[in-house]
Amino acid sequence: MIVTVTLNPALDLTYQLDGSLSPGRTHRVRAVDERPGGKGINVARVLHQLGVAVVATGLLGGTQGEAIRTRLAELGLSEHFVETGQDARRTVVVVGGGVSTGLWEPGPRLAGRHLDDLSHQMAHLISHARCVVFSGSLPPGLPSDAYRRLVALAVAAGVASILDADGDALTDALPAGPTLVKPNLDELGRAVGHDLSTLESTAAAATQLRLAGAGTVVVSRGALGLLAVTPVGTWLATPPRPIEGNPTGAGDACVAALARGLADGNPIDWPELLRDAVALSGAAVHRPVAGEVELEAYQRYRPQITLERMG
Amino acid sequence: MIVTVTLNPALDLTYQLDGSLSPGRTHRVRAVDERPGGKGINVARVLHQLGVAVVATGLLGGTQGEAIRTRLAELGLSEHFVETGQDARRTVVVVGGGVSTGLWEPGPRLAGRHLDDLSHQMAHLISHARCVVFSGSLPPGLPSDAYRRLVALAVAAGVASILDADGDALTDALPAGPTLVKPNLDELGRAVGHDLSTLESTAAAATQLRLAGAGTVVVSRGALGLLAVTPVGTWLATPPRPIEGNPTGAGDACVAALARGLADGNPIDWPELLRDAVALSGAAVHRPVAGEVELEAYQRYRPQITLERMG
Repeated sequence: MIVTVTLNPALDLTYQLDGSLSPGRTHRVRAVDERPGGKGINVARVLHQLGVAVVATGLLGGTQGEAIRTRLAELGLSEHFVETGQDARRTVVVVGGGVSTGLWEPGPRLAGRHLDDLSHQMAHLISHARCVVFSGSLPPGLPSDAYRRLVALAVAAGVASILDADGDALTDALPAGPTLVKPNLDELGRAVGHDLSTLESTAAAATQLRLAGAGTVVVSRGALGLLAVTPVGTWLATPPRPIEGNPTGAGDACVAALARGLADGNPIDWPELLRDAVALSGAAVHRPVAGEVELEAYQRYRPQITLERMG
Repeated sequence: MIVTVTLNPALDLTYQLDGSLSPGRTHRVRAVDERPGGKGINVARVLHQLGVAVVATGLLGGTQGEAIRTRLAELGLSEHFVETGQDARRTVVVVGGGVSTGLWEPGPRLAGRHLDDLSHQMAHLISHARCVVFSGSLPPGLPSDAYRRLVALAVAAGVASILDADGDALTDALPAGPTLVKPNLDELGRAVGHDLSTLESTAAAATQLRLAGAGTVVVSRGALGLLAVTPVGTWLATPPRPIEGNPTGAGDACVAALARGLADGNPIDWPELLRDAVALSGAAVHRPVAGEVELEAYQRYRPQITLERMG
């Protein structure tokens, strides 16, 4: 069983307009789509779609939290979120005239005791898990080392862990020793403090994160695929051509594949796992919303991914 | 006690941005304000602020409905909404760079049985009421004569009624004989099928609505004040000068004043009541959101309203 942890989940709303969004005017929304969101929940949805046993946990509250729980139940997805009593955030994407405009609410202001409650609950969940995934931003009020504390629980239990975070939330957690971190190029650049223009500088930055505590660093390079610096070698996994579509959620699908691989494999066949992760990312690009993959595209892409050993 | 009926309530969200709304981009929302909305609820909030006993009823459901109920309870406002099981709509106003942009979700699709449930519940509430206010749009799925059926309940019970609606929802209800209807100039124009450019054509259109069944027609003329065609005369009530601010909710404050007047008065002192209604509308313009009035401005405006008998 895989556990996904989402500290700042969201109710994701998509508003379809008949025309373009025009600032200063009032628009009737033609259709409203409402989904449970936040990166960890998206990872859980992809795993659930793949038939992998998964439990979503994290911090959730208020009436928005209730709406998220209801939507997860409708999807048949198990959840054990800690109730915070504070309304979860919404994200609104307004689609009109071929253009998407995003409005991201801030998360609720939470406190250290919410993290204590979650640590307590996770101790039980981790004892049944093969891999724990930590994904996404921290809500306001939580300390930047929140992920360090949670990753340490997985490490202490001998359970594989994946961290997909940005900024201090990522770098502060590295000393706890997550099994795998998955920054994209921008996030990796922020973590090491400089832009990454070449494959060599990217590999060097990934190695720097390994030295800081991460077991493996998988760098998502957008439509170019993945660069993975693992304990047993460095690989480049490349799709046959850039895949057109909506890149939102491709990173979450990649993490879902990596989590399944870490949960199953011992030892891990890295070339196979990276091929799988690039194919599943591509299959997410075919879907208009995060947290879903096109299974037929996934099977089609899998044999087309090129693997190159770099070191 | 006054009863307000809102068939299509909303959770009103206001998003404050740091800069302007820019289509195609993603924006972090700095602050979120969340209020119970819909015209009948706004009327109830103003009456509650004035210290008038009021109960809000109507149709409400789902997690948004739960959020609206929670907010009403926080305000100390009594509510007896019928639970529909269907999520109430949201309205989102995005404020950025001095410009407000509106996004109106459609209401939930309801059915005739929801109206039956409400009629049943209202029979009890009306027996305790001095005035019933029906305000705002009908949610999708309800017949256009919904207000006719509900107004008829008030008429049968000998209780005063006010209808503030538009289009078929207004015109289809007139035969039931509401005590008072309060169209604005656009709504009155739509009801009679032509634009209203003069005071004479406005008075003639109002008389036409009286002939169709309304007891009194109070036409809100925006910053120009009110024109009232009553069973005992026609009056023009005018503020000393146009009032600068946010006109949203001015009509609801006007209806609140009229409801209090109908509930109290027998016979009704129309000049006094119209003076009151214009002053309270002006006091709503001083507030950035609907459903609130500035009580100090209300007291200041009251003696400044000019009353003119037209017939």
